[in-house]
Amino acid sequence: MIKRRKSRVINIGTVPVGGKNPITVQSMTKTDTRDIKATVRQITELQEYGCEIIRCAVPDMEAAEALAGIKKGISIPLIADIHFDYRLALAALDAGIDGLRLNPGNISEPDRVAAVVKKAKERSVPIRIGVNAGSLPKEEKLTGLSIPERMVAAAMGHIKLLEDLDFDLIKVSLKAFDVPTTIDAYEKIVKKIDYPLHVGITESGTTRQGMIRSAVGIGILLNNGIGDTIRVSLTANPIEEVYAGFEILKSLNIREHGPTLISCPTCGRTEANIVEIADKVERFLARVDKPIRVAVMGCAVNGPGEAKDADIGIAGGKGKFILFKKGEKVKTIAEADVINELMREIKDL
Amino acid sequence: MIKRRKSRVINIGTVPVGGKNPITVQSMTKTDTRDIKATVRQITELQEYGCEIIRCAVPDMEAAEALAGIKKGISIPLIADIHFDYRLALAALDAGIDGLRLNPGNISEPDRVAAVVKKAKERSVPIRIGVNAGSLPKEEKLTGLSIPERMVAAAMGHIKLLEDLDFDLIKVSLKAFDVPTTIDAYEKIVKKIDYPLHVGITESGTTRQGMIRSAVGIGILLNNGIGDTIRVSLTANPIEEVYAGFEILKSLNIREHGPTLISCPTCGRTEANIVEIADKVERFLARVDKPIRVAVMGCAVNGPGEAKDADIGIAGGKGKFILFKKGEKVKTIAEADVINELMREIKDL
Repeated sequence: MIKRRKSRVINIGTVPVGGKNPITVQSMTKTDTRDIKATVRQITELQEYGCEIIRCAVPDMEAAEALAGIKKGISIPLIADIHFDYRLALAALDAGIDGLRLNPGNISEPDRVAAVVKKAKERSVPIRIGVNAGSLPKEEKLTGLSIPERMVAAAMGHIKLLEDLDFDLIKVSLKAFDVPTTIDAYEKIVKKIDYPLHVGITESGTTRQGMIRSAVGIGILLNNGIGDTIRVSLTANPIEEVYAGFEILKSLNIREHGPTLISCPTCGRTEANIVEIADKVERFLARVDKPIRVAVMGCAVNGPGEAKDADIGIAGGKGKFILFKKGEKVKTIAEADVINELMREIKDL
Repeated sequence: MIKRRKSRVINIGTVPVGGKNPITVQSMTKTDTRDIKATVRQITELQEYGCEIIRCAVPDMEAAEALAGIKKGISIPLIADIHFDYRLALAALDAGIDGLRLNPGNISEPDRVAAVVKKAKERSVPIRIGVNAGSLPKEEKLTGLSIPERMVAAAMGHIKLLEDLDFDLIKVSLKAFDVPTTIDAYEKIVKKIDYPLHVGITESGTTRQGMIRSAVGIGILLNNGIGDTIRVSLTANPIEEVYAGFEILKSLNIREHGPTLISCPTCGRTEANIVEIADKVERFLARVDKPIRVAVMGCAVNGPGEAKDADIGIAGGKGKFILFKKGEKVKTIAEADVINELMREIKDL
């Protein structure tokens, strides 16, 4: 059992983050935020895939003002991602957002920081401090420190600015492309703060490489009890980010989310086209909501036993398959009927 | 820095496994082992992708005898995967294989086990004991134990059979579909033995789910210093297994292997089609051998800084890109030329 780090709870709109609350999966839109229709459409699709919190970049005032319209069209909390310009933060708060991602140290004037924090506090809108290894401040006091130490020092500086203004609805992230750097940074900051943590690996690449790097990095942190909300960053459709986020949580038995496919890698013993059958079953399962476990095994002798955790499964030999439930054989099916029979049985579950 | 567990060294043909030797990436053929030509073709392709050890299933005597022909056609060590039948193991050893995967406890007669072990010892061929959570012995002495405890007990039983015959060229694996079960089993056995460990997650599914589950499970173990050779099991082309294996090792800076793509997830600030460009660059990099780092960033202002670890990169705005090296701007390129220019620069590196 994973012993989860103790953290405070903040509320991003209706979604609590931290404490013993479920570790949530979030994503970020890739549409032009000023295009309300396209952005709402993307968020609606992400909601269908289970996305629990969404973030939009706010590069200018038109984007900040569009947030009100976006907020109306969606049903999950909306976070505004803002850099440098405090006026965008104020406008985003006026638009009714549920969270801010903003590094107060990057806003030059203290009274501007104070204005943002005052409005966020009035509306109980949390602020995430998001430190990125690639854009650390070049302050002299940081020289001589390792990159993870510099990331933590930068975060602590931003946190102090908020705490000095008596603001504690804080969430923190410390992301790098380098996985060991990211892990080290989070391991260091948990000794200093009890704010909830947003965890991810940044610029991790396209679908396959990005999923693997993110799974390694986020997986290690979660297994060490670190992380209250996660985002997988991929150079790909954000649906893939949500999919990967839940698969990481599912792999550590932290969350349930839709079906899981247990399928054997096949080998020189396999006599049926298991790769093709598994792909078909996977596509069918994409439309199933329940957290069932389905197995596709290439070996009629060992398959049912090896996949006895599965609620239902098929194990194939030459031309025919065994249908099994919880490791027990139910019936024999001809290969031609196996997909349809399995789908029917899954619907009956 | 990861503190790697101390393990003995065994040699799978020319490839040392354990100790301070590189953590190797292996795969398994999915062709019919009796089809020498198809199997050699698949292994040759896997070698090109970097596969370092290959395993073939040996379901019958014809397959065992085919191993000699397969061995002749390939240049990486060959492991025979055998269940129950000691005659197949003897024939595989006669065929000149470099390693056996065989659980001696599943061979019923002690003199049969002795015959296999004698021949393996004469030829210095190591044996991997591969315990799978789905096919544990149903012995009464194991009742009351947790699944990881039963996996470890089963492995220790197999190990004792080999040690009693004065055989110590042993490698061990303890695989389950359930990631926490797998991790727990390995964490338990490292307290008992110093044999090298083969690490993987079994029946982990099709490409995406399987890569994620494997990356989480193998990544956590490697980060804890456990694992001397790895296999990612996917219901997919085995090339994907080799790719994923190296990406897991690369993500933890354990191995270098070919290029790495640093690419931003894009957001509402992005003004160029970064997903398409990153995909094109990734396809080009698939044919590059060197461990270079290439970045594709959607933001001309922060991109070069955020990707300063990259040997070379592009960061795009509207219609034009900046080419940068190690975070420093080199020149500006029109969007239409960006792929060709980047490819030319990569070739020059």
